[in-house]
Amino acid sequence: MKRIAILGSTGSIGTSALSVVDAHADRLAVVGLSAGENAERLAEQIARYRPRTVSMASGTAIDRLRQSGVSDVAVGGSGREGLIAVATAPDVDIVLCASSGTEALEAVLAAIEHRKTIALANKEVLVMAGGIVMDAARRHGVAILPVDSEHNAIHQCLHGRDAGEIRRLILTASGGPFRGRSASDLQSVTADEALQHPTWRMGRKITVDSATLMNKGLEVIEAHWLFGVRADQIDVVVHPQSVVHSMVEFVDGSVIAQLGVTDMRLPIQYAFSYPERWAAPLPSLDLVRAGRLDFDVPDAEAFPCLRLAYRALEAERSLPVVLNAANEVAVAKFLEGRIGFPAIAHVIERTMAAHRPVEVTALSSVRNVDSWAREHAREAAREVELKV
Amino acid sequence: MKRIAILGSTGSIGTSALSVVDAHADRLAVVGLSAGENAERLAEQIARYRPRTVSMASGTAIDRLRQSGVSDVAVGGSGREGLIAVATAPDVDIVLCASSGTEALEAVLAAIEHRKTIALANKEVLVMAGGIVMDAARRHGVAILPVDSEHNAIHQCLHGRDAGEIRRLILTASGGPFRGRSASDLQSVTADEALQHPTWRMGRKITVDSATLMNKGLEVIEAHWLFGVRADQIDVVVHPQSVVHSMVEFVDGSVIAQLGVTDMRLPIQYAFSYPERWAAPLPSLDLVRAGRLDFDVPDAEAFPCLRLAYRALEAERSLPVVLNAANEVAVAKFLEGRIGFPAIAHVIERTMAAHRPVEVTALSSVRNVDSWAREHAREAAREVELKV
Repeated sequence: MKRIAILGSTGSIGTSALSVVDAHADRLAVVGLSAGENAERLAEQIARYRPRTVSMASGTAIDRLRQSGVSDVAVGGSGREGLIAVATAPDVDIVLCASSGTEALEAVLAAIEHRKTIALANKEVLVMAGGIVMDAARRHGVAILPVDSEHNAIHQCLHGRDAGEIRRLILTASGGPFRGRSASDLQSVTADEALQHPTWRMGRKITVDSATLMNKGLEVIEAHWLFGVRADQIDVVVHPQSVVHSMVEFVDGSVIAQLGVTDMRLPIQYAFSYPERWAAPLPSLDLVRAGRLDFDVPDAEAFPCLRLAYRALEAERSLPVVLNAANEVAVAKFLEGRIGFPAIAHVIERTMAAHRPVEVTALSSVRNVDSWAREHAREAAREVELKV
Repeated sequence: MKRIAILGSTGSIGTSALSVVDAHADRLAVVGLSAGENAERLAEQIARYRPRTVSMASGTAIDRLRQSGVSDVAVGGSGREGLIAVATAPDVDIVLCASSGTEALEAVLAAIEHRKTIALANKEVLVMAGGIVMDAARRHGVAILPVDSEHNAIHQCLHGRDAGEIRRLILTASGGPFRGRSASDLQSVTADEALQHPTWRMGRKITVDSATLMNKGLEVIEAHWLFGVRADQIDVVVHPQSVVHSMVEFVDGSVIAQLGVTDMRLPIQYAFSYPERWAAPLPSLDLVRAGRLDFDVPDAEAFPCLRLAYRALEAERSLPVVLNAANEVAVAKFLEGRIGFPAIAHVIERTMAAHRPVEVTALSSVRNVDSWAREHAREAAREVELKV
């Protein structure tokens, strides 16, 4: 029996993870749940899965949870403290990190120190502090199992092989809702249009990241840390059908790819079952029905965020932190209708250009750079705010 | 240093194998070569690779070889005896079996008894005697590494995984030169048309087998023996670009595929380097240049040979031997222009229908069934000979 703690249990990944638990009640037990503000949903999950420890983002959320009459559960606290309590509880074997932000980062590091296996669905953890996290994982002999479909695919393709045998990684990108549009076409697209993802149903922020290709850029950085490859060994190819989730080309020229239905239960279950595979109640991939798979190069002009991510990775040090923070600010402004779509990349580029890179060897420097970048990005966004 | 013996060194697979040796002279040495009738080519290979033992198909071929002035090499004999001498010489680590027929089968079994690793490019060995060969390999703890691009792909996809985790194997088929043609379209196609394979350059017999889809049928049987899966766990999908060489769907619904350029040096090198991968002077697969990959179901009506192979496999026992023998006879007649293209399947079906299946537990029964089937297939072919 593997005992699971889920950080972000009421979100899209969290609820998929619980349905994986449902399908494997004989092999998986939920011992910890952490949620943001959705007390009602968490109360339902507590009633159903009977975790030992829970937490929520804020004290007011916990108050609402208590009012809903949950019992027989330890509340580990709120915010940062609560996440860490859930992630490090003694009965936890695997921590699924599906919550966002720097607090998740601290909880992941704490879980690693407590030798928990990490199932990682939060990109920011590695984008912001890949060096720190992977170093801690090595020191404590902890496995980081990626849940992101692309990295999960690469993990599957690499199974049983040596990292030295990698020639390059090929991340596939659906291309998002604006695939095929030119840079000038994208001047006036709205948040609603950006939220229409062609193949995956996800949260709002990541869906906008898919539209700008920043999501793929963050994945390039994540892949660098997870698999120990250089930026120039990571290629991105646009594959609109999202059937091939990613690929590894080995030194002998052979390419191994992972394909599947677009259902997050597959990579989540893989992370939970690893190194085994368990029979899953998922439909078989029907390639004949898919009919054809297309591959194309990303349009670097229309989607400059991808190039910015490569630039941040190549510079290493603190630039990926800046990229990530400025992107979060810019996407939030875009979703509020305050800035236009092309302004997202503009805000990030301006913030990166203003930054003087420093080494990132402790969480404190991550936090400092992150705060600086958010502040600077807000200013950069104000300069390009849309007149309403 | 791995020491290689090549059975069928002057053929298409044999010469590709020697070019793999050229690229890895620090890791591979040729210690044995066996050829058919091409004494001139074998003499060149002996001069270049300096094997310790050689053989040829016939005494007259060996006479021609001797006349060409080769020296410092032991001639292990001709035919069956020669193949076995080359395959079992004490200094051999890996036997690449790329020659055809029952004699290759005996040499493979002898090599297994001498605990040589087998790199298998000859389909007939497993189609005719899969049970006997795999049983011997298990008993002697010998690895059978498939060189056929499809089975090699599956071997790569299965690396590090358990056979019990397989849901199904998906063999890809280019569809051959007649893909998309209807059964009535195929009434009058000629041998020359059948020999125009769209993606692979191969020998004449196997190219016709690709046109009838019998090649895929033989591969289904081969896959059954190599990977221990039932006929109903093996699917065939038509994929005209031959970029995806084959796939494995696991019990969790995840599909792992192997992709690559269509160059036999890749699977041959994989078999030689296994469990390692070695850097190869092969070009990277350019998926963007490929642009699109298509998948379709095989046309069972136009290509009945595939169905005949499934039927033979489901019946097991001696029917695959009959299928293979009748196919060899029918294809030879078709290449001679004696029978039409649809008559190939007809001859096989007639021969299978006339056969009373027996158990195949010894080579003698394989030989008996093989002889009976060839004789019967010749008669069946005479009945449908074209009037000229």
